[in-house]
Amino acid sequence: MSSAYESYGLSSRVAEIPENQIARIADLARNDPEVIKLWIGEGDLPTPGFINQAAERALQDGETRYTYSQGLPQLREALARYHQRHWNVAVDPSRFCITVGGMNALMLSLQMILEPGDEVITPTPAWPNSLEAIRILGGVNVTVGYEFDAGGGMSLPLDRLFGAVTPRTRAIFINSPSNPTGWKMSREEMFQLRDFCRERRLWIIADEVYAHFVYDDAGVAPSFLEICTADDRLIVTNTFSKNWCMTGWRAGWAIVPEGLGGLLSNLGQYNTTSIPTFIQHACVTALDQGDDFIRYQVERCRASRQVLVEGLSRLPHVSVFAPQGTFYLFFRLDGVSGESFEIARHILEQAKVGIAPGSAFGNGGEGYMRICFAIDPALAQQALERLTPCLIALGTLSKSA
Amino acid sequence: MSSAYESYGLSSRVAEIPENQIARIADLARNDPEVIKLWIGEGDLPTPGFINQAAERALQDGETRYTYSQGLPQLREALARYHQRHWNVAVDPSRFCITVGGMNALMLSLQMILEPGDEVITPTPAWPNSLEAIRILGGVNVTVGYEFDAGGGMSLPLDRLFGAVTPRTRAIFINSPSNPTGWKMSREEMFQLRDFCRERRLWIIADEVYAHFVYDDAGVAPSFLEICTADDRLIVTNTFSKNWCMTGWRAGWAIVPEGLGGLLSNLGQYNTTSIPTFIQHACVTALDQGDDFIRYQVERCRASRQVLVEGLSRLPHVSVFAPQGTFYLFFRLDGVSGESFEIARHILEQAKVGIAPGSAFGNGGEGYMRICFAIDPALAQQALERLTPCLIALGTLSKSA
Repeated sequence: MSSAYESYGLSSRVAEIPENQIARIADLARNDPEVIKLWIGEGDLPTPGFINQAAERALQDGETRYTYSQGLPQLREALARYHQRHWNVAVDPSRFCITVGGMNALMLSLQMILEPGDEVITPTPAWPNSLEAIRILGGVNVTVGYEFDAGGGMSLPLDRLFGAVTPRTRAIFINSPSNPTGWKMSREEMFQLRDFCRERRLWIIADEVYAHFVYDDAGVAPSFLEICTADDRLIVTNTFSKNWCMTGWRAGWAIVPEGLGGLLSNLGQYNTTSIPTFIQHACVTALDQGDDFIRYQVERCRASRQVLVEGLSRLPHVSVFAPQGTFYLFFRLDGVSGESFEIARHILEQAKVGIAPGSAFGNGGEGYMRICFAIDPALAQQALERLTPCLIALGTLSKSA
Repeated sequence: MSSAYESYGLSSRVAEIPENQIARIADLARNDPEVIKLWIGEGDLPTPGFINQAAERALQDGETRYTYSQGLPQLREALARYHQRHWNVAVDPSRFCITVGGMNALMLSLQMILEPGDEVITPTPAWPNSLEAIRILGGVNVTVGYEFDAGGGMSLPLDRLFGAVTPRTRAIFINSPSNPTGWKMSREEMFQLRDFCRERRLWIIADEVYAHFVYDDAGVAPSFLEICTADDRLIVTNTFSKNWCMTGWRAGWAIVPEGLGGLLSNLGQYNTTSIPTFIQHACVTALDQGDDFIRYQVERCRASRQVLVEGLSRLPHVSVFAPQGTFYLFFRLDGVSGESFEIARHILEQAKVGIAPGSAFGNGGEGYMRICFAIDPALAQQALERLTPCLIALGTLSKSA
């Protein structure tokens, strides 16, 4: 990569793109049917048939032509109904912009607010793509670590988050519930962050992709939409990928302050033009008819989470951070030396279970592992049975070393 | 827009996004069924059924999950076959990157090569989106005008193109056949440009979207792929939109030099992740089974082109530049004063024909008009009959003024 970079004279944006550590481990056994693959943020269910059928109907109806960059009006209205129903918030349809998945919602939002050299603060470990998007746009990443305590608790120290602000800070990025840690921000912390950002005129970028995947009660994770007004510096990014198993559809949305929907969709025009027309029709169906499917999926995740949290917590040398949200289990092998990538490779070879090394998630990730549990509880049980002897052996090995 | 910009403190990237002049005229009568709409670069045919059906099959087969950012291997192989068949060039599948339409192919390519402050030279009038993508990335647009002569000829003076190069020039953008002018670069000019860019170590970005839509002979427009090697600084951008009436599918591709496919698709990962999986399967079908449809469409355009070129050339005060390629007719109203937007609005109201004002196409576009003729020849005849009295009246008005 660096030799191509030098010989062609490319942008410095691309010189520093790191190798994706999840892709690196997955490439070792992507097509091995024996491996239980829990490395990527994607469950084992296909898109439900009623959503596929809506796309097929739209194709047959000729919905194959150019459409609005901001998204079909009926899709933005369906999104408004969805937010009203689940969070009891009234968001005007003009504030929604349809994007090519949650990733593109984030990239366009950053294009809208960042000048080169601006700093964005991100709690880490974090989904690596958000940090990369900031860097590609010439922004500067400032990270603040979550704290993990011996009892399996996690927290984000707000004083350190606020202390990282400089005159160049433009935004604070919050992903709650958080990939990969499973941490969830409390409503009280959200109020504190909102008030701080109002005072300092900072943007909050809230990635609320996993809001339905929470395990402490029956509801959804709180949204910044509930506590912010339409003219606060708030951008919420989201996706159809996780709620409705539509990872391969590349459909998401951003919610911007009043008056900025046209601007963000103008950026969308010059990046991708729009998302496919017939897919937008299927998204309306997902929103209006997909609540039952979300509930089914969350209950399934809840069962798999219990299998893995209970099973792994019993093992010596394994510190499990029981996730408050998301469908990821984050754990640490205590006293086991070696890079998390090498440990993941060892587990892949010995246990035939594919997990993501913590090094994939930036600062503070090394030493940890991430497992995706958006799977059948029976598969979670099978994965646990394969992992158990392997992790015990790793721990014993470390003790004797 | 500017007030929102000021009150929120946004990136300077978005402060200068101009209003799209095609959207502005289309908004006046988007839903008026009486209007013959020839303003947008989109024909009157839906996507052919065999392509829709391929997408439906892929949906039913569960092709709804995350996939390769660079594109399915079988899609990149189908693209290699397509280029071999039509241009007799061997392009390695590793050089293709699947993108969210031609727009995204261009945006990602520019992200890969541009540093803020770098200059890109574009002949104008031009598709406005390419100029905007450059500006959004912090690049500097340098434009060189096509020359239009009284006899209906068009040319791009290469000496002026080469003379516009400075030490900050990074790339020359060539769209041949050209939207909106219909100009086509000769093979000899392509050799000259290639040699010049090799010497100066400049990138050629070749937008070859309209290559099949040529009218001087039965073939395709020449491609830079035919005269460049795999390590030349060449990026070719293309789309499924025009060849196969797939505008609303948002699927395209970029061809990069050897060794850079991984880099461009890494950028794709952090912009959009990929295009939808089942759409990629439909694209394979379009490439492998869609040659007949391209021929059918081009012959239809050829007939409509003849109707409009012959009909409009007969009118006084109308200078028609018979397009060598694309499906656009570019013409000028001689001696008619007023902004092209106001003239387009007058034509819309009087003749019920929607055409694009030249002001939509940047420097040198004012005073011209663009008509899309990717339509049934009978509809072209009807549009001509509506336009004729209106354009004669405009000319007479101007004479008497």
